Amino acid sequence: LRHFDQELDDLKAKILEMSALVETAIYRSIQSVVERNPELAYQVIANEERIDDLEIEIDEEAVRLIALQQPVAADLRLITATAKINNDLERMGDLAVSIAKRTLKLVHLPRVDVAIDIPHMAELVQAMVRKTLDSFVHRDADLARLVLAADDEVDAIKTASYGELVAYMGKNPDSIPVGLQLLGVVRNLERIADHATNIAEGVLFLITGIDVRHHAEERRLASRSSSQKAQDQ
Amino acid sequence: LRHFDQELDDLKAKILEMSALVETAIYRSIQSVVERNPELAYQVIANEERIDDLEIEIDEEAVRLIALQQPVAADLRLITATAKINNDLERMGDLAVSIAKRTLKLVHLPRVDVAIDIPHMAELVQAMVRKTLDSFVHRDADLARLVLAADDEVDAIKTASYGELVAYMGKNPDSIPVGLQLLGVVRNLERIADHATNIAEGVLFLITGIDVRHHAEERRLASRSSSQKAQDQ
Repeated sequence: LRHFDQELDDLKAKILEMSALVETAIYRSIQSVVERNPELAYQVIANEERIDDLEIEIDEEAVRLIALQQPVAADLRLITATAKINNDLERMGDLAVSIAKRTLKLVHLPRVDVAIDIPHMAELVQAMVRKTLDSFVHRDADLARLVLAADDEVDAIKTASYGELVAYMGKNPDSIPVGLQLLGVVRNLERIADHATNIAEGVLFLITGIDVRHHAEERRLASRSSSQKAQDQ
Repeated sequence: LRHFDQELDDLKAKILEMSALVETAIYRSIQSVVERNPELAYQVIANEERIDDLEIEIDEEAVRLIALQQPVAADLRLITATAKINNDLERMGDLAVSIAKRTLKLVHLPRVDVAIDIPHMAELVQAMVRKTLDSFVHRDADLARLVLAADDEVDAIKTASYGELVAYMGKNPDSIPVGLQLLGVVRNLERIADHATNIAEGVLFLITGIDVRHHAEERRLASRSSSQKAQDQ
């Protein structure tokens, strides 16, 4: 057995690599939609395998550390939080791939002139992702709470975009195929924000020891929990 | 510390309770849509809290068992597989709530005469859920493989339903709001099937020790992995 601290450092390094890969995937997928750029979409799809492999590595390493090293309370909490964050990151990576695949459909469809602001929504979501990962790296509870608050704005934009798109499709039935892809992008972005919120909850658990998943009291504090919103997809 | 075997039995009992709750939630949510029955939808929504609480209990119990008891290989594998199945079950519960909420919207919308067969798709998905849980209880690898195969049929129905609904909405723009809810139900059902597939993969891991998540070779054997499909949502 190697020294526990060294193994823990390896785990931390891997989750940072995972964060960087997923953040890049999200950035590229968003750019691919905004620019209707298939090259960026293909890059996102090509990088999925590395993210999937790294998820399994981190998962196995976390279980091994817990089973073999019997970590004490604070270390145990760090390892379980890392495993949960790992899972959310992998799902965010999947959603980036979903957006990239929508780009590959959108490039064959006409552009539509509908009043939805995907770049603005994407900017908010990317800021949430960045803040949530920073809050993890720097153990910053205030930053994590900002992520929980930002999620409401993303939800509001999603709801408004849905209304606009449905009205537009109603008036322009030819636009339904492109409208559904754009609805899908909006939904994917909102789900990325939900996972960023999950990670922020994990960071708060890591810092405070309080599990804010599912709990009504915390939900009120944190405006609205992400597991609740996951149902609205 | 209580005896390890007793704690492991408690964990098994809890995951069976979780399975039963989630299976009931899925059944009721599907019936609520098929019968346009808001009472059933409210039952699903009311039972969500118990599922969420149980997920956290199982999660904590699994980590505690691994950390304190240092289980050997087979037991460790059982505990980690249980934790993963727990996570998939909770997400299936969320999707049942999503379907139930769609019912509450659909009861205010006109019925549409579109050639999609939600009851048939729902039947297939429910059979997958039942088989995957049975494969876990009875450690039945053949049954788990049937689930992986059934997933392709669900995907085919989803794709066909999408085509029908998009064409119908194009001809009947007034039906777009109800069409989007039905698309949502179809997507939710397909995601429930994806999670059933994840669980079947977990069962195969439990029995064979081979992790079939994300791996291309296994993906070919298993037709198509669920993590791949999760991107198409």
